[in-house]
Amino acid sequence: MLTHFNEYGDARMVDVTGKNISDRRAVATATISMKKETIGLIKNKEISKGDVLATATIGGIMGAKKTSGLIPMCHNIFISGVEIKYEILESSVKIFAEVKTSGQTGVEMEALTAVSIAALAIYDMCKAFDKEMIISDIMLIEKTGGKSGHFINSKYNGG
Amino acid sequence: MLTHFNEYGDARMVDVTGKNISDRRAVATATISMKKETIGLIKNKEISKGDVLATATIGGIMGAKKTSGLIPMCHNIFISGVEIKYEILESSVKIFAEVKTSGQTGVEMEALTAVSIAALAIYDMCKAFDKEMIISDIMLIEKTGGKSGHFINSKYNGG
Amino acid sequence: MLTHFNEYGDARMVDVTGKNISDRRAVATATISMKKETIGLIKNKEISKGDVLATATIGGIMGAKKTSGLIPMCHNIFISGVEIKYEILESSVKIFAEVKTSGQTGVEMEALTAVSIAALAIYDMCKAFDKEMIISDIMLIEKTGGKSGHFINSKYNGG
Amino acid sequence: MLTHFNEYGDARMVDVTGKNISDRRAVATATISMKKETIGLIKNKEISKGDVLATATIGGIMGAKKTSGLIPMCHNIFISGVEIKYEILESSVKIFAEVKTSGQTGVEMEALTAVSIAALAIYDMCKAFDKEMIISDIMLIEKTGGKSGHFINSKYNGG
Amino acid sequence: MLTHFNEYGDARMVDVTGKNISDRRAVATATISMKKETIGLIKNKEISKGDVLATATIGGIMGAKKTSGLIPMCHNIFISGVEIKYEILESSVKIFAEVKTSGQTGVEMEALTAVSIAALAIYDMCKAFDKEMIISDIMLIEKTGGKSGHFINSKYNGG
Amino acid sequence: MLTHFNEYGDARMVDVTGKNISDRRAVATATISMKKETIGLIKNKEISKGDVLATATIGGIMGAKKTSGLIPMCHNIFISGVEIKYEILESSVKIFAEVKTSGQTGVEMEALTAVSIAALAIYDMCKAFDKEMIISDIMLIEKTGGKSGHFINSKYNGG
Repeated sequence: MLTHFNEYGDARMVDVTGKNISDRRAVATATISMKKETIGLIKNKEISKGDVLATATIGGIMGAKKTSGLIPMCHNIFISGVEIKYEILESSVKIFAEVKTSGQTGVEMEALTAVSIAALAIYDMCKAFDKEMIISDIMLIEKTGGKSGHFINSKYNGG
Repeated sequence: MLTHFNEYGDARMVDVTGKNISDRRAVATATISMKKETIGLIKNKEISKGDVLATATIGGIMGAKKTSGLIPMCHNIFISGVEIKYEILESSVKIFAEVKTSGQTGVEMEALTAVSIAALAIYDMCKAFDKEMIISDIMLIEKTGGKSGHFINSKYNGG
Repeated sequence: MLTHFNEYGDARMVDVTGKNISDRRAVATATISMKKETIGLIKNKEISKGDVLATATIGGIMGAKKTSGLIPMCHNIFISGVEIKYEILESSVKIFAEVKTSGQTGVEMEALTAVSIAALAIYDMCKAFDKEMIISDIMLIEKTGGKSGHFINSKYNGG
Repeated sequence: MLTHFNEYGDARMVDVTGKNISDRRAVATATISMKKETIGLIKNKEISKGDVLATATIGGIMGAKKTSGLIPMCHNIFISGVEIKYEILESSVKIFAEVKTSGQTGVEMEALTAVSIAALAIYDMCKAFDKEMIISDIMLIEKTGGKSGHFINSKYNGG
Repeated sequence: MLTHFNEYGDARMVDVTGKNISDRRAVATATISMKKETIGLIKNKEISKGDVLATATIGGIMGAKKTSGLIPMCHNIFISGVEIKYEILESSVKIFAEVKTSGQTGVEMEALTAVSIAALAIYDMCKAFDKEMIISDIMLIEKTGGKSGHFINSKYNGG
Repeated sequence: MLTHFNEYGDARMVDVTGKNISDRRAVATATISMKKETIGLIKNKEISKGDVLATATIGGIMGAKKTSGLIPMCHNIFISGVEIKYEILESSVKIFAEVKTSGQTGVEMEALTAVSIAALAIYDMCKAFDKEMIISDIMLIEKTGGKSGHFINSKYNGG
């Protein structure tokens, strides 16, 4: 492509025209740490702005659909399914997202975006009670489909 | 998917990975009721904000393309065609939208969104003259393609 | 503005530069009719796609924020608050939205868009059970602020 | 489609359901003319808002992905690759974009949108130094794939 | 701001917090050249996709509202009015957009984006008849308000 | 607001109509950990997709502008300035964002969104080399303006 032009301002959305269409799937996670009291408010649905995890789930799913509009070099793709779940611990909430597609590119960015936006939505719903929440451990857990095959993150240790 | 996690904040974008790609089509309708005088202004293109139905048509078509960004659990899909038409009655405008796709999910939400946004655009263009317009009878008329086959709405009686 | 040019393709986003900034508020409503059984599924949160009204509320609030991107001639404004509530009847759900702003234009389109998107989201969540739901009675109930003062819709009879 | 309704407000997103899926590619160009001094600032990365061409490239690529949300009757499609390059002349910058897809419609609007948004982004980055820049010669250079075959613009004379 | 960090990846959305709120206005133009026959089709509204200039106007106005989402370093602002007009010549259409705001930044990018998107929409509507249209002479004509006062483009010679 | 309706599907965009307009500012941070080799590729601009940090900066700034479209209950506001900077360590990149506004609500969500999207963009640019990168320590560092005054995060220890 355009190989004879000067190399200024260089960034590209990689050409995937030749890649195979295959069923692809990615699972990502994030953790948001907060005060024990805030966990209690979430569990008992006592946050006045609304149901925290229902709101985070919808933010995360809608965020997954917006990934290519957010991440500059990311392809816009058809997402065939998104699911978000939570594990509520003593002073943190773990977020998991699974995203599926049938297409020419993987959905790891969609899964990572889903958990990130869900975590930010939790922060937003609870920030009147706790401004010192920390979002961490955003990582890809697993990825299937495509040429590179089955990837399992060696740095992920549980859930 | 993610079956071993807790069931908090539960909502999902249903997994359609296994569904067949087929040509799908949906037709929806909406009606906006208004004063006879306002109908006259629309017909004679005397509304100062511009051509009411041309604006509504474009709003509706662009709205159909935004459906998955508006309806939280709706899949983002390739829309292969949209057409919007009107039937102008004495004190109401009937709006019809037909949407087509080749894909794994139906386009009933896209057709319903198209007529809804078109109706809202008509309200916006005419609201300086009539704030008591009512939008009603938003419904699916017909749907073809996909596993569920040909659906005709038994509650729709004419047009 | 541009008064000496030809009058083709005429539509305009009305100039509100000279209007006063004031606190403005609009309340709108919509009704979605469905089978009694579907009402039961919503109340008991038995719809597998998730909590129907929580999803509709978030869709409606996010839809209010997108109004100027949906309705062609609508101004983009700062929305200072949105609230959505429901009244569940035997075979229908009534949706109410109140939107507030401090600005130069009213928020009736934002309130009408909020109830419309919330109604469409309910349709989407329940359509596997009932494709013949009808959305109707989308109207402005009340509007305060701005030059035109307090408007109460004479066609709205209850709630 | 909807052939028996009245012909008001007529505009349509053309039905491409029956068209073949094929690899398609479009190349477009734009030129932005400016003062020699401004060219110098771009080359030496002395514009305080940031790296001009890197910003323009990302704006252009993200713009290509938004094409169907900008151009009313344009289909939303999967873009499989975008590349943007520049040729810096004495008092102008030439912009080239190549866009690829595998689908039922061409990507000429995506390529034209990419160069247009890139040119506007250059204007924005440099406008503190030069408000009299002119964007011109936005045109399609070449188009392959689809029923109409290989198109080469007879009006494009080099680069 | 953040002055003690390293200077990598440098680009900024310039801080306008200290600037005055004032009424601002910008006028921009673009020209799209095409075959005489295509001009005839536009004038007689014989393009099957719909009314070309009505569609371009709505695309341009909606594009003005999306400017800050398209141009990376552009501020999101409240636009208080947009008007788009056309001058149809023998083998070209001249597009003019006037945009107004009351705010801390100018609206030249909004006016330039409006004429660019309107021109691209005209291209899209007519491309089945003429792929060799050229968009040119996109420039700012005039700008008022703000610290820099009244700007008139010395390179603009008519209309 | 709407106090007499049933409490289903409860979530609200909090009413800030009565809050004062004041200059507000928020600073947030995120860290992305990766292999030493990947840090080298970023520093030497050897990633084939483009300049990693320039891309991340633009993604982050554009992400800040999209915050209210991503976080369900977040107000849409005018952002008067965004700056993003990086500190490159041996096997991680620290990201800092400062966001400013003059308005009725704070910009902590905008600053947190900016660093999150910038971190995700870095992941996307480098994922061909390293799929086990981890994004962590997303937190608010500081916040000024508004009724709650100057907030400094006691959990942030450095930078």
